Amino acid sequence: MGLDDRLPYLLQRNHIARIEGDSLLIGDRRRYPWEKSFVRCQSVEEASNAIKEMVTQGGGSLQVGLTAMRFVARRMEEGRLEKSGEVFCKAVSCLSASRPTNTTMRRTLEFLLDAILQWFSQRDHTVSLTEHVDALVDSMEARFDEAYDRMSDLGASSIMDGETILTTCFAEHSFVLSLSKALEAGKHIAVIVPETRPYLQGSRLTAPSLQELGIPVTLITDGMGAHLMAEGKVHRYLTAADVLTLDGTVVNKTGTLAYAICASYYGIPYQAFALFADTQKKDAAAIVIEERDPEEVTHCLGMRTTSEGIPARYPAFDIILPSLVDSVITPKGIFKPSEVKSVYGGSKVGMDFLWH
Amino acid sequence: MGLDDRLPYLLQRNHIARIEGDSLLIGDRRRYPWEKSFVRCQSVEEASNAIKEMVTQGGGSLQVGLTAMRFVARRMEEGRLEKSGEVFCKAVSCLSASRPTNTTMRRTLEFLLDAILQWFSQRDHTVSLTEHVDALVDSMEARFDEAYDRMSDLGASSIMDGETILTTCFAEHSFVLSLSKALEAGKHIAVIVPETRPYLQGSRLTAPSLQELGIPVTLITDGMGAHLMAEGKVHRYLTAADVLTLDGTVVNKTGTLAYAICASYYGIPYQAFALFADTQKKDAAAIVIEERDPEEVTHCLGMRTTSEGIPARYPAFDIILPSLVDSVITPKGIFKPSEVKSVYGGSKVGMDFLWH
Repeated sequence: MGLDDRLPYLLQRNHIARIEGDSLLIGDRRRYPWEKSFVRCQSVEEASNAIKEMVTQGGGSLQVGLTAMRFVARRMEEGRLEKSGEVFCKAVSCLSASRPTNTTMRRTLEFLLDAILQWFSQRDHTVSLTEHVDALVDSMEARFDEAYDRMSDLGASSIMDGETILTTCFAEHSFVLSLSKALEAGKHIAVIVPETRPYLQGSRLTAPSLQELGIPVTLITDGMGAHLMAEGKVHRYLTAADVLTLDGTVVNKTGTLAYAICASYYGIPYQAFALFADTQKKDAAAIVIEERDPEEVTHCLGMRTTSEGIPARYPAFDIILPSLVDSVITPKGIFKPSEVKSVYGGSKVGMDFLWH
Repeated sequence: MGLDDRLPYLLQRNHIARIEGDSLLIGDRRRYPWEKSFVRCQSVEEASNAIKEMVTQGGGSLQVGLTAMRFVARRMEEGRLEKSGEVFCKAVSCLSASRPTNTTMRRTLEFLLDAILQWFSQRDHTVSLTEHVDALVDSMEARFDEAYDRMSDLGASSIMDGETILTTCFAEHSFVLSLSKALEAGKHIAVIVPETRPYLQGSRLTAPSLQELGIPVTLITDGMGAHLMAEGKVHRYLTAADVLTLDGTVVNKTGTLAYAICASYYGIPYQAFALFADTQKKDAAAIVIEERDPEEVTHCLGMRTTSEGIPARYPAFDIILPSLVDSVITPKGIFKPSEVKSVYGGSKVGMDFLWH
């Protein structure tokens, strides 16, 4: 069962990444909503660079990673890549290195890699390498869809009739489906979307995707959310989590921390969607915050916003300590930050839901 | 004594507003730092519209208002406007209506108007109308300069060696001079400037002006300030105040509230520069928040940032309640919010410093 028919254009699997001919295509979110174009990659290195350059981001990177495994298998069978487990290992390392903060793609691919490598240790193959990898990725994609479906059921039941929800960046599947399902359940909801500079994921990705699904949306700039909270117009702050650590610390796009603090100040619950906890990360000290090129802060949509020579900084993610998080919505249920360790701490990688 | 030689280009009086030939010129901040251009106004109505359209803002509007009084006097003596007190009253009303939140220009012009109207009640004139108005405006401009000088002495002494200061929008004279004076006093300081969407006053006005004065500046987007606070890299949050009410409530550009809340959360003092309290405003209930055209939020530097038909909101100012304000820096001294009423409450208009 796929979720594609319930998702907006941007989140439909083929629009995130797909194989076409001898290329791996990645939907170019940098040009959305004005263009529905794709970046054509001929190698894993090119795909990794595309992620680095923000062609896609968040859960988009995960989908590129999964599609890249299918792509590598095909290249090997075409004789254009050496048919070896080592090459798969290198592909996973290369993709994982694309961006340092969000560990979902890296952890998923490392998990998948073990299963892929089994093919190479077999003497007799009942299936081709491509069939083997496709079956693994198909299964994993189905598990992710189930996870999104479960998380959005939980998200939708959290949302009360009449609520206005503030978000940050592009919280993707679980967020969008939660809103859709709340709307289908007859709840009156509205969403406030901060534009999310410098890349404008809010203006360009979230707002058009919600509009596409008929979810009422209002765009603001990143500084305006507290004003709306003070007016009593925000009932819930809801984002994705790029990382969730075992102590319930949430990592998400820059700008999330300020709103989490403001939400706490006004008694508004802050909830984050997390596919799983990163069981290798105990707390905030284990998080690597990506510092991106300051050029991205001194430009908007490619246009310079300030004088030449003005220094800038771009810490791409915020760390939100557990005291500011009301709860996390995971495929296993909704948990208080303090419960994360007992739920995920026992699992070696916290991803057992992916492997039935 | 003028302050012009200590101020950056943008704050030099002739670059804010001046009379040239039969026009009132207003420095076009919308095109700065790429162009040093002026909008040419032939009437007070045109000047008022220019302020509405953000050709200038903040203290810039005050300077346009003062220059407009000189302009009206000249037009009257040239016989191009009826020579009457009524026409001055209408000019003040028209300019005051340009933007509703910041009351500095309106209150200053109403204060000045009484003195201007005295000329019309005199039988014999020892000076021409232009000479009368020029003398009044000259004196008032000198008083404002003295006020900025005093406030920036106070601001500079507040700032400690080694501090990094976060700001919002373009806090103009007192802010810029405080930093300059702190630097001259040998203090090592640095300033973090959020870009201040939608108009980018931070990127376009504040950062280049500080760069011009040799003050170390780092640009960020509006969502990033809390991240830097969490890193321990912000020691003081310092802005202008578009309005200060008698209970110590500060009104300032959208985005200020979120940072004031975050500063309070991290124990960082928030200080605002205010020329005076608005003695007609008891507290936040008396404040009129301007809602500007949402088109400004769906565009950046004239380029659309989202799909057609996405609704947006632009509340242009934030209300920061006294509990979030550490102190206000005024020409009369640095006061806790709770002290504002005793300092300014006795004065009819709170502007006695303007009239020696």
